[in-house]
Amino acid sequence: MEGAVGQIGITVEPAGMAKYLGDWAGDYRGDALVVLRPGSVGEVQALMRLCGELGLGVIPQGGNTGLVSGAIDSKGGGLVVVSLERLNSIRQIDKDNFTLRADAGCVLQTIKDACEAQDYLFPLALGAQGSCQIGGNAASNAGGVNVLRHGMARDLILGLEVVLANGELWNGFSGLRKNNSGYDLKQLFIGSEGTLGVITGVEVKLFPKPARVETAYLGLASFEAAVTLFNRARRDCSDLISAFEIIGSECIELARLIDPGMAAPVSAPVQVLVELSSGPGIDLNGLLAGFLTDAMEKGLLIDAVLAASNAQARSFWAIREGLVEGQAKRGYHVRTDLSVRISDIPALIENASRFVANDHPGWIALAYGHAGDGNIHFNVLPPMHLAVADARTRGSEITAGLYEIAVGLGGSISAEHGIGRSRAREFWSGLSPAHRRMVAALKNALDPKGLMNPGCLLPSTETFP
Amino acid sequence: MEGAVGQIGITVEPAGMAKYLGDWAGDYRGDALVVLRPGSVGEVQALMRLCGELGLGVIPQGGNTGLVSGAIDSKGGGLVVVSLERLNSIRQIDKDNFTLRADAGCVLQTIKDACEAQDYLFPLALGAQGSCQIGGNAASNAGGVNVLRHGMARDLILGLEVVLANGELWNGFSGLRKNNSGYDLKQLFIGSEGTLGVITGVEVKLFPKPARVETAYLGLASFEAAVTLFNRARRDCSDLISAFEIIGSECIELARLIDPGMAAPVSAPVQVLVELSSGPGIDLNGLLAGFLTDAMEKGLLIDAVLAASNAQARSFWAIREGLVEGQAKRGYHVRTDLSVRISDIPALIENASRFVANDHPGWIALAYGHAGDGNIHFNVLPPMHLAVADARTRGSEITAGLYEIAVGLGGSISAEHGIGRSRAREFWSGLSPAHRRMVAALKNALDPKGLMNPGCLLPSTETFP
Repeated sequence: MEGAVGQIGITVEPAGMAKYLGDWAGDYRGDALVVLRPGSVGEVQALMRLCGELGLGVIPQGGNTGLVSGAIDSKGGGLVVVSLERLNSIRQIDKDNFTLRADAGCVLQTIKDACEAQDYLFPLALGAQGSCQIGGNAASNAGGVNVLRHGMARDLILGLEVVLANGELWNGFSGLRKNNSGYDLKQLFIGSEGTLGVITGVEVKLFPKPARVETAYLGLASFEAAVTLFNRARRDCSDLISAFEIIGSECIELARLIDPGMAAPVSAPVQVLVELSSGPGIDLNGLLAGFLTDAMEKGLLIDAVLAASNAQARSFWAIREGLVEGQAKRGYHVRTDLSVRISDIPALIENASRFVANDHPGWIALAYGHAGDGNIHFNVLPPMHLAVADARTRGSEITAGLYEIAVGLGGSISAEHGIGRSRAREFWSGLSPAHRRMVAALKNALDPKGLMNPGCLLPSTETFP
Repeated sequence: MEGAVGQIGITVEPAGMAKYLGDWAGDYRGDALVVLRPGSVGEVQALMRLCGELGLGVIPQGGNTGLVSGAIDSKGGGLVVVSLERLNSIRQIDKDNFTLRADAGCVLQTIKDACEAQDYLFPLALGAQGSCQIGGNAASNAGGVNVLRHGMARDLILGLEVVLANGELWNGFSGLRKNNSGYDLKQLFIGSEGTLGVITGVEVKLFPKPARVETAYLGLASFEAAVTLFNRARRDCSDLISAFEIIGSECIELARLIDPGMAAPVSAPVQVLVELSSGPGIDLNGLLAGFLTDAMEKGLLIDAVLAASNAQARSFWAIREGLVEGQAKRGYHVRTDLSVRISDIPALIENASRFVANDHPGWIALAYGHAGDGNIHFNVLPPMHLAVADARTRGSEITAGLYEIAVGLGGSISAEHGIGRSRAREFWSGLSPAHRRMVAALKNALDPKGLMNPGCLLPSTETFP
């Protein structure tokens, strides 16, 4: 293999391989025949050709921060892990075109910082941004906290450069906003989780860096009220909303058990963190204050606190982030990433809460998420003192039940985290025959030898029709 | 065929068929074995199965308003035209989810009106909106005047329902904003111009109807100044820009020859129509006025008129629309639909103008377009009194030269109109081998018998690898 990637690109020692074989959350451990770290697009092509000749499966890997075992093979499949981390240059920022072109291995935070230094915004924002890579963001169609305003990674990507399964290079870079020229091939690779090719470069849209940001923390009577409030906010705040995070008060109570200093600025069954952002010419504070006054008068709000300083705004976000950390400190728990129509959020939370209360008494249901996207993380914590093995067994049942509730509402079991290996079976079995046939046909069309990330997304090559 | 679609769905008389066989602009005349007008999705499935058995090619047809002969077969291929016009119900408006689900045959204007009646906006807007259909908008990834703010049809579509080439129904309806569950199949059908399946239903995003709109007509010294102004406008107007139309002064002079009443409110080599829109809580007039004052002080503007009334705003738009009509009145002329990076707009127009002046003296070059999208309609009018046949021959040369200039800048020969049959050869020959191989593989994967819109997009089935 040395010929293809150069001495420096090969890491075979077990110690060196470890960081590429364990996932960020510590949920999965994997194995690999070898970890290759190519230093150029040509090396990626060469190693793909070599793997094709040898019949070796390949896992493209970015920052390895995924949550669904998309870049970790724990089944001992003898796969080749290809880390893109050495391809890490920003190739171009086109200021008048509001675009940036970068190697796949660029860390998201590096891209965000480079944009900010020039007064631009690259809006993709997620917890792992300090280590995830833009190529992985494209391959997994990353979501995060800014989806409401700027969409998923898919919505931000104008072009891709991809090494195909046979080693051919597809130069799909583009800075064009409009290009109606046949099938939009990049769409296939975005969100394909490495199963169709190795993304080596990404071209994305940039935005003006917002000059003003206003944040408020709200108390509401119900999830229904939150849906109504969101509708009003879209209208009255002219789609300048950059976050509309919903938090069930149970989440706060749990977080307080772990960190007694945690305190929400309002007391209400349902809490909302709303953020607006805009350019310099708008009285954003007045806009948000006027909206909240009006909503209060209409009875949509129980309470509202408009942040008077950046420090107070940060304290609101600390609540939203702290409740996730609080759950993590409880150890194993059921984590979901469901999405439904925004109008179905109340039904989802009600049905799921009833299911947990009735069928799994003692377990603690928590609901929070990106309400403006219909994306709810409905998580369930085991009773204290339950043995972990027992909790995991019961947790699988609970997960299955929650998936059924979401799908019953026409929702998704994977709003943003993807399918990977950990959800491949549920994903595949939930597809209609027509859908399954198309997925398999596309996979076979672009990766006829089944070399690309075997076992990810599609449960295994054997199940193809 | 009557069994499959029912008596009422069949139109075989030549008179009845005429409207389905000629295009809107009068550029193309076609032929068909038969025109079928199914009345249900089940009938679409039945006729696809029947055509598969008989080996008959199928052209799915919406409002037949395309400009590239995508739904017109003028080669006597003995194809079956399937008009979706009888599938024309709006199936659902979900107000809190900001979504609408409709049959493919719904006329775009009908959808826009239904939304407006409920205080919502469906932002897709184009000249043909009174007769084009939402299914055709999806199949052709329609653009229009609102792309700058809300994107192409692709960006507005959340889900599709498609009858596949083998007659299977794929229910890809979705009202979800986030759904990271494997390949995003709808992306393949959007913009595929009927070559992969028959779209029978579409689910789209809605927006709040804007409460405020402000319009201004600006005079600038150059196209470079327009690019700089656009950059400033994005920043200072907080991405509330809903149109940024650029017009070379030659366009106005030509339009005045045809309609002496036509007069631009400014006198400058380059003119810009800018429009902002927002919700009720923003002082949009103050925002635009402040931006224009600042731009004037910075020397970016020669002149500016901020519309003082709706009537004046409409008069600005009448100039933009009138120049297109003015060109049409001159009869045959070279029409292009080029796109480049926004930063390359000045180079495109300069190179193209020099090419016409040097190589085709006497021809009149006109540049205008959606500058905020990098989409320039660079049109060229023949000298007066040149015979039409001679003009067409020379026009083909000019078109080829303009395509070369756009492609040389990394641009597209089809920003929004699509490929159809009229650009299939240029499109195909301009693709890299890797790109061509993927397009053919996808076509073969989803339409192995080559039944779907033969000759459109892909030049002919014989050229597949």
